[in-house]
Amino acid sequence: MRGLSRATVARLPRYLRLLDDIEENRDTVSSGDLAGAAGVNPANVRRDLSALGFQGTRGVGYSVAPLRDRIRRELGIVSRRRVAIVGAGNLGTALARYTGLGKRGFDVVAVYDVDTRRIGESIGELTVDSLDRIGEDCKAGRFEMAILAVPASAAQQVTDLLAEAGVSSILNFAPARVSASDEVAIRHVDLSVELQILSYYG
Amino acid sequence: MRGLSRATVARLPRYLRLLDDIEENRDTVSSGDLAGAAGVNPANVRRDLSALGFQGTRGVGYSVAPLRDRIRRELGIVSRRRVAIVGAGNLGTALARYTGLGKRGFDVVAVYDVDTRRIGESIGELTVDSLDRIGEDCKAGRFEMAILAVPASAAQQVTDLLAEAGVSSILNFAPARVSASDEVAIRHVDLSVELQILSYYG
Repeated sequence: MRGLSRATVARLPRYLRLLDDIEENRDTVSSGDLAGAAGVNPANVRRDLSALGFQGTRGVGYSVAPLRDRIRRELGIVSRRRVAIVGAGNLGTALARYTGLGKRGFDVVAVYDVDTRRIGESIGELTVDSLDRIGEDCKAGRFEMAILAVPASAAQQVTDLLAEAGVSSILNFAPARVSASDEVAIRHVDLSVELQILSYYG
Repeated sequence: MRGLSRATVARLPRYLRLLDDIEENRDTVSSGDLAGAAGVNPANVRRDLSALGFQGTRGVGYSVAPLRDRIRRELGIVSRRRVAIVGAGNLGTALARYTGLGKRGFDVVAVYDVDTRRIGESIGELTVDSLDRIGEDCKAGRFEMAILAVPASAAQQVTDLLAEAGVSSILNFAPARVSASDEVAIRHVDLSVELQILSYYG
């Protein structure tokens, strides 16, 4: 765990999206625009960016290029990250085809499944590999991050395999909590949480 | 927009998940357990629950049943909410089959698509309907919430249709921002944001 607060870390990708998408001829961005992108107020933005050592200029804002570079460095995505998807069902296939990942610096390099009917199938330019290979592939450095799109009952077992093989991070879409040693960063995506938050506002 | 902070609203579903899953014979829950479930510290929990009018008892914690009822009421999920999924591709199909939704009070009641090859197909107990029907169905009260699992290019058009028909909330999985009048609550799920946050910790 490093020095930024969880809330700040969660906002950095949202600032970065704005900085990545900004018109080429704009050199500066206001704290108000950044606040809008992250759904917070400008005081949050100033506090977050101050924690990265950036002070905006009053009436001008922040310089786009250095801020973008710094956030990318902070998030550890200066170079592209290689991602494996585990589970070639509907969700895994949707994720493998999701074009938003490539645009943000993540390359899906492998898809694994246990189902012999799926192994060998093509998803875009990828071919589904047997889950039996995943530990070996991870140890060989084929990927650093994994996305779990497996049934709840298989999630912990796959996590154990990946942790044993030295994966650095796991994004879990399976509707079950999984755990590993502190060396593995784990994030759970629970769709019903998103719907409940939405339910408050709608 | 109501009185709770965005951060508090985002944590309520995570507290609720713990309260829903707690063993039946436990009457109380500590702020520490609630903090663990939401990934925050106990001081955050006490502040959040105090905003709902709950004060824990030192050394005992909070009473489970009243707290659960209050959070459900606050989130507007006292009764079950009916959800339509727009887009019957891999993502839409995965979402329609996602068992976590039903457990948390959301019933997927309809799936729509524009592709005539998909219309009429079965996904579990649902049959894919033509998108032409969505406005009429929404006006007739078939559902209150919609999940967009359509290509980026179609997202705004579908949002306009739904807003016009009076939908209350939209959860957008399409990799494009969409907007509507203030009467419609919109939430964007961007998978790359999750991966970037994870990248910081891994």
